[in-house]
Amino acid sequence: MNHAFLNDYNEICHNEVIDFVQQHIHDRTLGYEEDEHCQKASEMLLELFECKDAKVQFFIGGTSANLTMISMLLKHSYEAVIATKQSHIANHEGGAIEGCGHRILIAEDYKGKICADSIERICIEHMNDRHMVLPKLVYISNTTEVGTVYSLEELEEISKVCKKYDLYFYMDGARLFSARYSLFNDIHFKDYAKYLDAFYVGGTKAGLMLGEAAIIVNKDLQKDYLRHMKNKGAMLAKGSLIGLNFQALLTDEFYKRVAINCNEKAMSVAAFLETKGHEFMVRPESNQIFVLMRDTEVETLSQYYDFADLGYENKDSKRKCIRLVTSFSTTQKDVDEFMETYNRIFPNK
Amino acid sequence: MNHAFLNDYNEICHNEVIDFVQQHIHDRTLGYEEDEHCQKASEMLLELFECKDAKVQFFIGGTSANLTMISMLLKHSYEAVIATKQSHIANHEGGAIEGCGHRILIAEDYKGKICADSIERICIEHMNDRHMVLPKLVYISNTTEVGTVYSLEELEEISKVCKKYDLYFYMDGARLFSARYSLFNDIHFKDYAKYLDAFYVGGTKAGLMLGEAAIIVNKDLQKDYLRHMKNKGAMLAKGSLIGLNFQALLTDEFYKRVAINCNEKAMSVAAFLETKGHEFMVRPESNQIFVLMRDTEVETLSQYYDFADLGYENKDSKRKCIRLVTSFSTTQKDVDEFMETYNRIFPNK
Amino acid sequence: MNHAFLNDYNEICHNEVIDFVQQHIHDRTLGYEEDEHCQKASEMLLELFECKDAKVQFFIGGTSANLTMISMLLKHSYEAVIATKQSHIANHEGGAIEGCGHRILIAEDYKGKICADSIERICIEHMNDRHMVLPKLVYISNTTEVGTVYSLEELEEISKVCKKYDLYFYMDGARLFSARYSLFNDIHFKDYAKYLDAFYVGGTKAGLMLGEAAIIVNKDLQKDYLRHMKNKGAMLAKGSLIGLNFQALLTDEFYKRVAINCNEKAMSVAAFLETKGHEFMVRPESNQIFVLMRDTEVETLSQYYDFADLGYENKDSKRKCIRLVTSFSTTQKDVDEFMETYNRIFPNK
Amino acid sequence: MNHAFLNDYNEICHNEVIDFVQQHIHDRTLGYEEDEHCQKASEMLLELFECKDAKVQFFIGGTSANLTMISMLLKHSYEAVIATKQSHIANHEGGAIEGCGHRILIAEDYKGKICADSIERICIEHMNDRHMVLPKLVYISNTTEVGTVYSLEELEEISKVCKKYDLYFYMDGARLFSARYSLFNDIHFKDYAKYLDAFYVGGTKAGLMLGEAAIIVNKDLQKDYLRHMKNKGAMLAKGSLIGLNFQALLTDEFYKRVAINCNEKAMSVAAFLETKGHEFMVRPESNQIFVLMRDTEVETLSQYYDFADLGYENKDSKRKCIRLVTSFSTTQKDVDEFMETYNRIFPNK
Repeated sequence: MNHAFLNDYNEICHNEVIDFVQQHIHDRTLGYEEDEHCQKASEMLLELFECKDAKVQFFIGGTSANLTMISMLLKHSYEAVIATKQSHIANHEGGAIEGCGHRILIAEDYKGKICADSIERICIEHMNDRHMVLPKLVYISNTTEVGTVYSLEELEEISKVCKKYDLYFYMDGARLFSARYSLFNDIHFKDYAKYLDAFYVGGTKAGLMLGEAAIIVNKDLQKDYLRHMKNKGAMLAKGSLIGLNFQALLTDEFYKRVAINCNEKAMSVAAFLETKGHEFMVRPESNQIFVLMRDTEVETLSQYYDFADLGYENKDSKRKCIRLVTSFSTTQKDVDEFMETYNRIFPNK
Repeated sequence: MNHAFLNDYNEICHNEVIDFVQQHIHDRTLGYEEDEHCQKASEMLLELFECKDAKVQFFIGGTSANLTMISMLLKHSYEAVIATKQSHIANHEGGAIEGCGHRILIAEDYKGKICADSIERICIEHMNDRHMVLPKLVYISNTTEVGTVYSLEELEEISKVCKKYDLYFYMDGARLFSARYSLFNDIHFKDYAKYLDAFYVGGTKAGLMLGEAAIIVNKDLQKDYLRHMKNKGAMLAKGSLIGLNFQALLTDEFYKRVAINCNEKAMSVAAFLETKGHEFMVRPESNQIFVLMRDTEVETLSQYYDFADLGYENKDSKRKCIRLVTSFSTTQKDVDEFMETYNRIFPNK
Repeated sequence: MNHAFLNDYNEICHNEVIDFVQQHIHDRTLGYEEDEHCQKASEMLLELFECKDAKVQFFIGGTSANLTMISMLLKHSYEAVIATKQSHIANHEGGAIEGCGHRILIAEDYKGKICADSIERICIEHMNDRHMVLPKLVYISNTTEVGTVYSLEELEEISKVCKKYDLYFYMDGARLFSARYSLFNDIHFKDYAKYLDAFYVGGTKAGLMLGEAAIIVNKDLQKDYLRHMKNKGAMLAKGSLIGLNFQALLTDEFYKRVAINCNEKAMSVAAFLETKGHEFMVRPESNQIFVLMRDTEVETLSQYYDFADLGYENKDSKRKCIRLVTSFSTTQKDVDEFMETYNRIFPNK
Repeated sequence: MNHAFLNDYNEICHNEVIDFVQQHIHDRTLGYEEDEHCQKASEMLLELFECKDAKVQFFIGGTSANLTMISMLLKHSYEAVIATKQSHIANHEGGAIEGCGHRILIAEDYKGKICADSIERICIEHMNDRHMVLPKLVYISNTTEVGTVYSLEELEEISKVCKKYDLYFYMDGARLFSARYSLFNDIHFKDYAKYLDAFYVGGTKAGLMLGEAAIIVNKDLQKDYLRHMKNKGAMLAKGSLIGLNFQALLTDEFYKRVAINCNEKAMSVAAFLETKGHEFMVRPESNQIFVLMRDTEVETLSQYYDFADLGYENKDSKRKCIRLVTSFSTTQKDVDEFMETYNRIFPNK
């Protein structure tokens, strides 16, 4: 079974990363992210995102980052977060946000992107009724869970609604570099800190062994976050391991090379599938593509490749949607093999 | 500043570990601990602890393991865990257990070890009064937070009280290998699964990059723990990284070599200090030694070495207690340097 | 401003209730529901519902009952409750369920009643994916939040799905007596204990000063619920006050007289409005009616009567839906006055 | 069995209270404390305590008030409350505070009153170590759980430490009126709002049917508390019932008459027992007395009276401590009967 397009975390890491770590495994440092490697990585991140006064906090994974950050931003359990129905926190994080005491309010979305006017309607409805929860935070993912990317205009528009209704604005950037180097992106690194109160930058899906870096822009939120992380079990004893991983990520534009590789490989696969007559659930914009295929084709392909099957397009359709993902480790050979396999198993397409 | 005796997580990992990982960084596996490396490591662990029907779950660190396991064992927030006042969960985990909704009831201790009769008194008091919390779990650490080790008899005695009062029995084994190879230990690997409902085996402080392995012995507790881990943000996407770390730990008795090294080095330092007339807070039994020194000596030593200062012995004393810790990476050279430095800065001792 | 049709808790209580309480205010009893008045009320309830082996626990209000019972039924925060989008817990309880750590999964509904096949689809989707929450409980209200009542067949059908997917089945009976004596009801008192694991019987909206009575049918759930109530702050020190209220409720079929009064008065108002050409959001079946009126009419009526305005029927409509509610205290005079007022302010209808 | 001295909530209420309520049971009001009765009671309370800008919120009982208020004052689960080991929240509230996510740190006490210097030591220890919880609130009860009362000087001293370490200061006033009219009290009503951020005034133990009134002095804490109450299930639908109870309490100095009655009756009983040679655990200062008796005497007395038995004074003693409590309903006849019974069953004392 070929795992090449299953997800973007199926190989441990890029050689450059482990080589970087290996040079430092015997450095004797303080624990719990108080070491010089984390310090250096923080500085490099704040420079890249052009927000010197922000604070960086490293996490071991996305769910840990999301639950810790969101429960830091929300102070009481009557406060709620607004997100889309496809959002990671509303689906594949095992109820972690509710586990911290908070409701997720579902806003309407367009191609997986949250609609600013729907946020506004939710605010009006809830703020006028004191028996309801109080919206206090907007959560977005970029790239989204369906691989689309936000435009700068969309970011601005959401930010405006957030300011109007006194909401924090938080971004899950598990695939932030893939978004940044998408052909459809017009947001620059410096824009994030301008519009967001906090966000996290994904390392796991960008070729690192592990690690996500939360960037806390809003100064009101920077106090006591170490105690909060400890309380949520989110702190790694050997924090320097993540610090080193992020230094590797930020050295010689590693993040850019990885993002461009995975986006380009995804575009190649998408272009190939389009020539074969396939349509997409949404237009491919980054390293995840959601392609529609007849159920019999899915069945056949699944004998060769491992991939996520999202089920039938709708009740009456014979088409299913499957997800193909590229990563730092996807090679041209992987793409070529996929095309060859496809041509062989579907000779009449 | 010399960090050699600061803690047992100040270097990232042993060479054998990173070498082992490096051989597999390009294996394409499933994520979230569903891979073959985790599978293999689980089997090796269950063989070592002679409990084939137990389940293994890997964590990234001790606080994450403790909060996830304890909140899995306790089902309602009126259920409480019994522990000593020095216990890690009652001190340095940022209120993580209460953060999951549970009270920690403090039992009396002897040399950092929980007293079975104190557990019994707590049970009698609480079980008779329905306005109080219900004790449901006993937490111990082995080695304890003051470096002592439990005897088999003590383990049996606690287990007996647990059975009598329908309490789960859980062990934090962050330094389990150091306990196992302590000169004062008489507990065998197979004994743990016999007496405990669940425990975790520490990798971080045994020379690994990261990782703790929870072993869930009690069958009633084995269901749906993956969802629970996800809910607590405790699952690593690239779970195979921890699986590989634990394989390295369990290969060629790495765990034993590391434990013997750190215990021996600690005994050397302790013996040296004893010859210099120092007393200990408790008799050194493993890789942490708690030595009493005059405050002026602590002041002097702190100019050369970084270590934890636990403060004055008592209100009227001029002596302070400091903690010196050895690890997988402590060398004879580290010990020799310490002795030379000591002799140089305290020439009259 | 006339409050007659605002809600069913706008007067403190029926005379029979306060008279009953007054006879016993100087009885010296134990506190916290361990008194003889609670004991007697429990027995009367279990006799009415024909479930001698169930346990009764009294609460001061619906949200307190719902959050305490649901967090008793759900044991871990990865466990979720399924409910409709209109359900009280998903709207007007301030996020109390999430505050206890649990997600509410929204199932499709028909006239405010949960669809059994939608429950099934949610189960299949979630049970197959261990990164998601685990459905473990179905919540219904009867009467529903839009005043409709479940049929015995619907109850059976939901119960069947619950058994198939190992879900608890819980009913919010804030208006259970109004449901029981609805002209559209075919469920008998004894049926509830047959199909439900637990439910609560509303006293507040049935003419009592305060009080709801939870009936815990499933034996597995009867243990330690007093500690759980205490933990949630749900226990009244002078529990006998609620015990006496419920005795009054259950004396001389008070519950039936109250329910019939409020249902009949609501039917009168509904019939009147129908003759005036108004339509309803759903067919009136109990003591809450949801009538559609032009926005200008709503405006006019609101100068005389206080009522809940649920907003426009839909984006393009000029009609709004308003809620009129009757209660134990609604008199024929109230109904007559309403009709007179209506005729006076809308002379051309 | 005589329940006269069992507790101060064993009769439902004083006649004046139910008479007051009865006059208003058919008033048609808004629900959830938005009615005119609550409004009036609030104004009366703020006038009595001389804090016009504070906000009042009514609760149904002490545990509900404590858990709701404390979880409003503490914003994150790494924040902790400091209290004495006898404090109600640390004992008889079923772990409600931990259930909301917060640790209770135990400070030393003197006669059940918290020691300001112990608070300071806890702050220094915890604030310097970011792996520990952060103290953020001091909880006191007045009268304390052992019936003692704070002096103004003690209140000032605690307040000073709170300001120094940025802690909120909160008082559980379940028996505030008994404290206020204690012969040993020198705190005036207006002093509470001067030193405390929030406190609650007990009605349940002052002759009301039910109800406690939280007074939120600190303006930063006054926002959105209605949503918070809803989230905790703490809001009564028929809030006017509590409003009316509190109006009765505040009419014609009812609170004073009740407090003086219960204190005087307790002093009579205490004086009698002293003449019989009994000692007290602490000097009786209010309506709870903690008397030491030989275990055989306790055994004998328990055949006539129901009371709380707190167990042996210490391991080696034959004396037990029992609690006798007076209330609004304790009459001279109750006291006389007690003395007669005592003389009869202990003829040789």
